[in-house]
Amino acid sequence: MRRVRVGDLDEAALLARFLPGLPTQALLGPGDDAAVLAAPDGRVVATADVLVEHRDFRRDWSTGADVGWKAAMQNVADVAAMGATCTGLLVSLGMPADLDVSWVDDFAAGLGAACRAVGTNVVGGDLSGATEVVVAVTALGDLGGRAPLLRSGARAGDLVTVAGTLGRSAAGLDLLQRGASADAPELVEAHRRPVPPWAAGPAAALAGASAQMDVSDGLLRDAGRLAAASAVVLDLDLRGALLGRWAAALAATTGVAGPTADGFVLTGGEDHALLGCFPPTATLPPGVAVVGRVRATGPGERPRVLVDGVPWAGPGVGWDHFAPGG
Amino acid sequence: MRRVRVGDLDEAALLARFLPGLPTQALLGPGDDAAVLAAPDGRVVATADVLVEHRDFRRDWSTGADVGWKAAMQNVADVAAMGATCTGLLVSLGMPADLDVSWVDDFAAGLGAACRAVGTNVVGGDLSGATEVVVAVTALGDLGGRAPLLRSGARAGDLVTVAGTLGRSAAGLDLLQRGASADAPELVEAHRRPVPPWAAGPAAALAGASAQMDVSDGLLRDAGRLAAASAVVLDLDLRGALLGRWAAALAATTGVAGPTADGFVLTGGEDHALLGCFPPTATLPPGVAVVGRVRATGPGERPRVLVDGVPWAGPGVGWDHFAPGG
Repeated sequence: MRRVRVGDLDEAALLARFLPGLPTQALLGPGDDAAVLAAPDGRVVATADVLVEHRDFRRDWSTGADVGWKAAMQNVADVAAMGATCTGLLVSLGMPADLDVSWVDDFAAGLGAACRAVGTNVVGGDLSGATEVVVAVTALGDLGGRAPLLRSGARAGDLVTVAGTLGRSAAGLDLLQRGASADAPELVEAHRRPVPPWAAGPAAALAGASAQMDVSDGLLRDAGRLAAASAVVLDLDLRGALLGRWAAALAATTGVAGPTADGFVLTGGEDHALLGCFPPTATLPPGVAVVGRVRATGPGERPRVLVDGVPWAGPGVGWDHFAPGG
Repeated sequence: MRRVRVGDLDEAALLARFLPGLPTQALLGPGDDAAVLAAPDGRVVATADVLVEHRDFRRDWSTGADVGWKAAMQNVADVAAMGATCTGLLVSLGMPADLDVSWVDDFAAGLGAACRAVGTNVVGGDLSGATEVVVAVTALGDLGGRAPLLRSGARAGDLVTVAGTLGRSAAGLDLLQRGASADAPELVEAHRRPVPPWAAGPAAALAGASAQMDVSDGLLRDAGRLAAASAVVLDLDLRGALLGRWAAALAATTGVAGPTADGFVLTGGEDHALLGCFPPTATLPPGVAVVGRVRATGPGERPRVLVDGVPWAGPGVGWDHFAPGG
């Protein structure tokens, strides 16, 4: 069977392959100059992310479906972090002319699966030629009348919480890098197809959360941003607590040393867990677990993140958007 | 002075250069997981486009400011085509590590200038490494209580109209390709920095337009899409009419042959004029000019576009998003 490449088709033919498998429901869906979505709240939440081949994914490590899934989910997580529900995605795809069209079909299938899982739609986008595969996604969301959950709302005395999991994506990437995927396929899957706790985002808003954010660049780095925005100190519990148990489980499954596994949980990105803060009196929604406390900065102390009361000095997983990587 | 490259800075440092020059006003602007925009209409218009270096622009022919301007304007034009006003842009930028940071500064300046011209804001986006420069923009808009103007609304008897200009971008690109920019710098400028008639979009809706779309891929191609969506025939006037006068002026300015200039006007893309249809009784808004008529399809006739009553057989400007080009 002849291999069909992207360059063999024009944009209309590519769209005709791309759109049918996607949920596209909107007041006005793709096909006109722009889509029209309902925004019943009178406000709209909007966020954008770009994934670039060789930097954010590798085609030999992730299928088109994996990339489509991940592109949707990392944006859905940002919308959820605001306490909103996702009302639609716009997905632009740049592709080399020699890319096999089956990769595009596969991308659409993964994107569609993620949308159906979340209950959202692809309402627009663009296809273009490019030297490498580039995926640019915008997600829109509705707040349902609630105030958005910001990074700046944490107050001294709040509980620090996590919905979802941490460290599994980094552990899966490490297995891929070591050629040891067979040791824990479920972790490789967690790297390829993260499942953010999207329903926990609006649930946190309803339960009175004071702050929330998506953990995309690693817990310590993102918690540092929340601490800075709120001008507080976050003290996370590792030893003998949930984060430590997650690390121990990763060490046991993958055979990495304990400190390495701690590093996965504390600094690994791309799980898209939701980091939250709640007043101590709040009733936490299902799936939201306490991982630390917020306290005020001391005299001369800058906002920061501590682990078991001290700055983290253990191993970490580096991440630089401008360097080639996994 | 040492040349600073994108790869010398981290994302935070790049953002710190990128954001200050941009208008970013929103209910909640960039800096959290997502922005929050007002959507007073209860619906939101959304459209996305991607520009890729070597395909959609060349860095030796367009400055960073040109690319930033154009990326904003082509999306603003799509929002205007729906009859909406632009309420915000999300702009993602992929950049090679060796790109001079001054290009990024310049891009932000052009993007900001376009936003200020239109009265809109950059409310979100993403920065990433990439092999070539890739710009992905999403534009959001508000309909102000009006029905969106679709491609499918044209009716037999309607006037066909254009707001803005046609052929100037193609003529400017031709000058660049021939190394003859000095012959008509204003046309090169029209290629580098198109000025879509964004205010004419909502004005058309208020004036009772039946259909509207952005002309991004050339009048004949885009009019063909409108004809197909509306199941009608569009008959455009060329000889002795406005389109013909535009072509004659381009021929006179640039020295190209008359048929070539006709081709620029009829098939040249990227001017981002607005193609509209109005009932013959409508009072056309300022800047909206009649360029033809809508008629019903005859027995067995498919929806199509005619020029002076016959299918266009003259020269055209090809455009394939998956081939390298201007």
